[in-house]
Amino acid sequence: MGLTLKQAQGVVQAAHEKAVAMGVKMNIAVVDAGANLVAFIRMDDAWLGSLDISIKKAKTARFFDMPTGELGKLSQPGGPLFNIEVSNGGLITFPGGIPLVGDGGQVMGAIGVSGSTVENDHTVAEAGVAGLPAR
Amino acid sequence: MGLTLKQAQGVVQAAHEKAVAMGVKMNIAVVDAGANLVAFIRMDDAWLGSLDISIKKAKTARFFDMPTGELGKLSQPGGPLFNIEVSNGGLITFPGGIPLVGDGGQVMGAIGVSGSTVENDHTVAEAGVAGLPAR
Amino acid sequence: MGLTLKQAQGVVQAAHEKAVAMGVKMNIAVVDAGANLVAFIRMDDAWLGSLDISIKKAKTARFFDMPTGELGKLSQPGGPLFNIEVSNGGLITFPGGIPLVGDGGQVMGAIGVSGSTVENDHTVAEAGVAGLPAR
Amino acid sequence: MGLTLKQAQGVVQAAHEKAVAMGVKMNIAVVDAGANLVAFIRMDDAWLGSLDISIKKAKTARFFDMPTGELGKLSQPGGPLFNIEVSNGGLITFPGGIPLVGDGGQVMGAIGVSGSTVENDHTVAEAGVAGLPAR
Repeated sequence: MGLTLKQAQGVVQAAHEKAVAMGVKMNIAVVDAGANLVAFIRMDDAWLGSLDISIKKAKTARFFDMPTGELGKLSQPGGPLFNIEVSNGGLITFPGGIPLVGDGGQVMGAIGVSGSTVENDHTVAEAGVAGLPAR
Repeated sequence: MGLTLKQAQGVVQAAHEKAVAMGVKMNIAVVDAGANLVAFIRMDDAWLGSLDISIKKAKTARFFDMPTGELGKLSQPGGPLFNIEVSNGGLITFPGGIPLVGDGGQVMGAIGVSGSTVENDHTVAEAGVAGLPAR
Repeated sequence: MGLTLKQAQGVVQAAHEKAVAMGVKMNIAVVDAGANLVAFIRMDDAWLGSLDISIKKAKTARFFDMPTGELGKLSQPGGPLFNIEVSNGGLITFPGGIPLVGDGGQVMGAIGVSGSTVENDHTVAEAGVAGLPAR
Repeated sequence: MGLTLKQAQGVVQAAHEKAVAMGVKMNIAVVDAGANLVAFIRMDDAWLGSLDISIKKAKTARFFDMPTGELGKLSQPGGPLFNIEVSNGGLITFPGGIPLVGDGGQVMGAIGVSGSTVENDHTVAEAGVAGLPAR
């Protein structure tokens, strides 16, 4: 069964609360197993350019079922996936995107977060993952 | 002052509740005065193709500060704005997008709804507009 | 010899003054013989969606060396150029774009205006054409 | 309150005068807080390919509220934002884009300059920033 809106909103809310607690301004996107957007928010005064990046991080994490930062290790000059970022209308391969995994181990979608350092982006995305509600 | 996330979420929630009450499955998007996305939800089993349409409706309504259906009256064959839809990366000119207007009369952004008949889309968008919270 | 910046700015200024006199809020674009932008202004509170349209009108007028509205007569359903608007990354074929013609009869570029009715857009574009300075 | 056309034109003019004084041929773009173009000029014989770059520099500087060159330090191979340039329809992350900041510290938009070395581009952009008129 697919990711529900209720679940996606739970993920967004958990990430949002973490961002507020950290004092960072984030764009937060959740996509489903088809890599299509289910829920999105942009916090007040968050970087405008991070809107697109948050969605691309979520898509990238689902496209390859791994955290975006892992893909970024492989896309460096000389690496096996050099410049993979130009595919799929644009991938983002630095941290901040993480797959959402169901109880049975299946990937249900992904979260993408952008608006601060990549470490902060990843931390807020982790909070979103942890907040995935059971169906 | 710009549209806040809290206001955008209030608009989305009001539209969402209307859609649930009507038994329709919608994509609901809210953009700010710069026509950039602030909040978005896709209801369970809503048409996937309506995702992009809802965002384009919101953008279109803000781009021209009028309900999308009004623009569509002018873009018909023989009309003064025939095929305006190819501009701005794609406009949607049938009903479902409505500007959000502040107390002072200034356009603060817009809502775009897609997922049912254009009449239903417009009705749900109107409910979203009516739900715009004061700051 | 190509259209100079000074000439393009003269065209923009003449159009701008006409728009102010008419009380309309316009986006005004001027392209050169290569259909590439030379000068652009967006008046305060002009429609945001008219930004792209003004540039597309200028390009369209130069692409076919005729006023955009003339092309629009041919692109209607049943007409010889039906839906030509999808070419070239998007054409605009309603009035508001007019070629700029040099003393020798050669097309030097074009002006595109968008922000009001197509009649007003065309009138402001005509004022821009009339304001083309000699080199 | 948003950036006015008069302010944007003042920024463009200051940058233009600097470019003339330096003997360089520039494309100069100014966007508002929504990252949408307000004013643009291309100097005679300026690189044609710099047209798009100047606009993308201005957008990039506003998207992340920092000079484009600062972002470029982070987007190098092995850096935290490697290949961020594929997002947002294309970013430019070398010098030449700088935010425009209002008296109250709020970002009002940005200037983007392209047509010479990146050092010269940045210098001309700085002149534009210094020329931002009070409202």
